Amino acid sequence: MIKPMKIALATQNLHKHREFSQMFPEITFLLPDDHLGVAFHHEETGSTYLENALGKARALYELTGVPSLADDSGLSVKALEGAPGIMSARYGGDSLSDQKRYSLLLSHLEGETDRRAWFVCCLVLVLDPLRHISVQETSEGEILLEPRGIQGFGYDPVFFVPSFGRSMAELTPEEKHQVSHRGRAARLLRPLMPAAEHKEDNR
Amino acid sequence: MIKPMKIALATQNLHKHREFSQMFPEITFLLPDDHLGVAFHHEETGSTYLENALGKARALYELTGVPSLADDSGLSVKALEGAPGIMSARYGGDSLSDQKRYSLLLSHLEGETDRRAWFVCCLVLVLDPLRHISVQETSEGEILLEPRGIQGFGYDPVFFVPSFGRSMAELTPEEKHQVSHRGRAARLLRPLMPAAEHKEDNR
Repeated sequence: MIKPMKIALATQNLHKHREFSQMFPEITFLLPDDHLGVAFHHEETGSTYLENALGKARALYELTGVPSLADDSGLSVKALEGAPGIMSARYGGDSLSDQKRYSLLLSHLEGETDRRAWFVCCLVLVLDPLRHISVQETSEGEILLEPRGIQGFGYDPVFFVPSFGRSMAELTPEEKHQVSHRGRAARLLRPLMPAAEHKEDNR
Repeated sequence: MIKPMKIALATQNLHKHREFSQMFPEITFLLPDDHLGVAFHHEETGSTYLENALGKARALYELTGVPSLADDSGLSVKALEGAPGIMSARYGGDSLSDQKRYSLLLSHLEGETDRRAWFVCCLVLVLDPLRHISVQETSEGEILLEPRGIQGFGYDPVFFVPSFGRSMAELTPEEKHQVSHRGRAARLLRPLMPAAEHKEDNR
């Protein structure tokens, strides 16, 4: 039995807030603007998922003093040598809709027969100035020729999950969390979350 | 019950090998030279414990294909604004003995009444090219005026552990692992070690 606890979530993305709340029902995830009253915007200037997630979690911890969780995630396509990778959320420009973004990806893969791809998710939990935990997990699949399904978000409609024989956007939330990069990372992180309740004065 | 397993350990430091073997008796830690037959030397060029540990674990994984664990650790002294920090093992020069190194630290703290300090340990386990886990933990204490004890290694003789009322070098290995930075990080990492047995083809 895990005790109820509060964790600040370093995101403005309500899809991610919903997924974390589904995956950790015992945890109240506090959003910077809505629950913590801080204006949080962190430029993703790192060259890896880990640097980006650590940067976001640390920035929110510094603003709030509350143990802070951040997620940086993306999609790596074999035939594109790992692209869009850490640029996934900005692929084609900041202002694109999810639909325009995955359509752009499909257009870059036109005629390509090697459709292998990996979702990657890095979670970082900052506990205090010197203590942090990170987990980076993946989910294997293939890029479809056309979008399928309306669940999830981002590239989910064009990502085929072999074990289910359906796209990520055709899975229920419970099914998605079983196999997704974010679900796998969250399951690894879960037994470590209580560490957030031990405080050490190491500033 | 944790299954027996093998993990490559990205270090040449036999003290660390011994401590990991004591803390994880169910795991066989393979040393690069002795057990894996690879010449392993990795420059610690990162600006954080995490970058250094990730760099070492990833380098050893690339050489061996075996899930690889690395440790980067150090001592932060409040009155020295966090120094020697990531430079701890090279403080005063590469070739110094442990005794010369902690004597140098004592000389830099002569007359200083704020003796607060933290040992920091970052462990990184690289599972495959896109999957990794990290834990960074600390242990609070004070820098003594003179060395005490002969157990442990590094700065242990000059680090006073308040909860035991003894120096880190006056603790038995079991006592040290209870309170040390490395012991705490290892306990957090332990439930995640079986993740090393799940392979994902994400190259």
